[in-house]
Amino acid sequence: MTLEVLPAETVVARGKRPPQGEPVVDRALALLAAFDDKHLRLSLSDLARRSGMPVSTARRLAVRFVAWGALEKDESGLYSVGLRLWQVASLAERGLSLRDEAPPFLDDLHAVTHHHVQLAVLDHTDALVLDRRLGDVELPAISYRIGGRIPLVASAAGVVLLAHSPAEFQDQVLSGPFRWPLHECPRPAAKDVRAQLAGVRRTGLAMLSRPTAPIASVAAPVRDQQGSVVAAISVVVPAGSIELYRFEPALRATARAVSRAMGAPMAVGATAPW
Amino acid sequence: MTLEVLPAETVVARGKRPPQGEPVVDRALALLAAFDDKHLRLSLSDLARRSGMPVSTARRLAVRFVAWGALEKDESGLYSVGLRLWQVASLAERGLSLRDEAPPFLDDLHAVTHHHVQLAVLDHTDALVLDRRLGDVELPAISYRIGGRIPLVASAAGVVLLAHSPAEFQDQVLSGPFRWPLHECPRPAAKDVRAQLAGVRRTGLAMLSRPTAPIASVAAPVRDQQGSVVAAISVVVPAGSIELYRFEPALRATARAVSRAMGAPMAVGATAPW
Repeated sequence: MTLEVLPAETVVARGKRPPQGEPVVDRALALLAAFDDKHLRLSLSDLARRSGMPVSTARRLAVRFVAWGALEKDESGLYSVGLRLWQVASLAERGLSLRDEAPPFLDDLHAVTHHHVQLAVLDHTDALVLDRRLGDVELPAISYRIGGRIPLVASAAGVVLLAHSPAEFQDQVLSGPFRWPLHECPRPAAKDVRAQLAGVRRTGLAMLSRPTAPIASVAAPVRDQQGSVVAAISVVVPAGSIELYRFEPALRATARAVSRAMGAPMAVGATAPW
Repeated sequence: MTLEVLPAETVVARGKRPPQGEPVVDRALALLAAFDDKHLRLSLSDLARRSGMPVSTARRLAVRFVAWGALEKDESGLYSVGLRLWQVASLAERGLSLRDEAPPFLDDLHAVTHHHVQLAVLDHTDALVLDRRLGDVELPAISYRIGGRIPLVASAAGVVLLAHSPAEFQDQVLSGPFRWPLHECPRPAAKDVRAQLAGVRRTGLAMLSRPTAPIASVAAPVRDQQGSVVAAISVVVPAGSIELYRFEPALRATARAVSRAMGAPMAVGATAPW
């Protein structure tokens, strides 16, 4: 998979006319980027404003999108993302087998922990939640949504994904102003994160628990047929409420089970990176 | 929700340059429509051929799509649908609360029936599978995939959705050559389908079981806050193996549970349309 760190404005893709390329295509994509989990339905003027284009352009594009099914328009004239787009997007090859294979094992992990369980993959400079099970306790500062994004450095799942990504990608992430939403805690230095990543690769487990953070999490890697890390499974709990080590065996077993279902070559014995 | 019966070539959106509108946008959408569950990864030339455009055009569009994340390109140069598109599409408002609320109840129905369970919504002239649980027995002629499409008239879930759709939409579907994949069985006459739809509205249940068809299915409607039918839940079994009536109470209870979770006004008593 090509790992590219796009500049933030490309990932956000909103509000600016791209300087080159196929402006119509970029505008069309900007129209899609106008939606987020706080903006599921948009009026034409909001759609135009949030995608940074004149209302007339937004209307012209939206008509084509509605005809195809990429957008839907309700009786009151509000636009939302269309189910046809969801159907095409469900073909996303990366994640397809994970979304097929992981659910029963996520159910099991959730059934024995009663805590928040996440399955996440790397997508640009975030971890993307492919699936999740809700814990009994509501947690602050966490994306509950399937399709939600979580920061790479400030979540155990993200740290697992970063630890197993190419060195150049790690350099790009750590040399930039990486996302750090734990305002209560000081942003860690790049060299401390690097040491942490090395530990994750060695132990096969990431644990994130900071004295003043509201949540703590532990994550383990999921591997594919080639033995490459393609996802992370994490258990997220309210900080200080519980020893993360309690979940280690169940989490490792779940990550192994999903890896096996993905066709990963399974290592045996204590020295294995599982 | 706007229900439009688009001409087949618009829905398939492949191989033809649209006669008007924003040709670039329509081409961009045609690029996405080149993917289906038999074609998860495409070379540039296949992408161009399946979307009906010159290779040079396909390459130019694909570059923009990859930069945004709507497509991904692997080491061998094959394109697949990108996770960024999946993330945006996960915001599809229609289906979002269903995908959030239904899973535990689908688990329950699956746990007590051990058969194939589907949650489907109307999308153009098909039913679209939003979620499903696999039965113990593999079934022929059924879309197992989340995001797969099933025909309206030849599936119990589709019949429920059609029965509760506007009369003009039913007319459009039944006056055309509606999809009928049960090659072993004669295609039913429109007036027989209409009688069946009236029965479904009266009883709140659709049962499809034809002597020579390989599968049989039973479905019940799911309603939203307005009391409108927004989805159908079905149990699909190998034909002749089992009495569909056995599943009726569990299926009705599940459809009620999901409807309640969706905020539907719950009717009580035997005369209710549940």
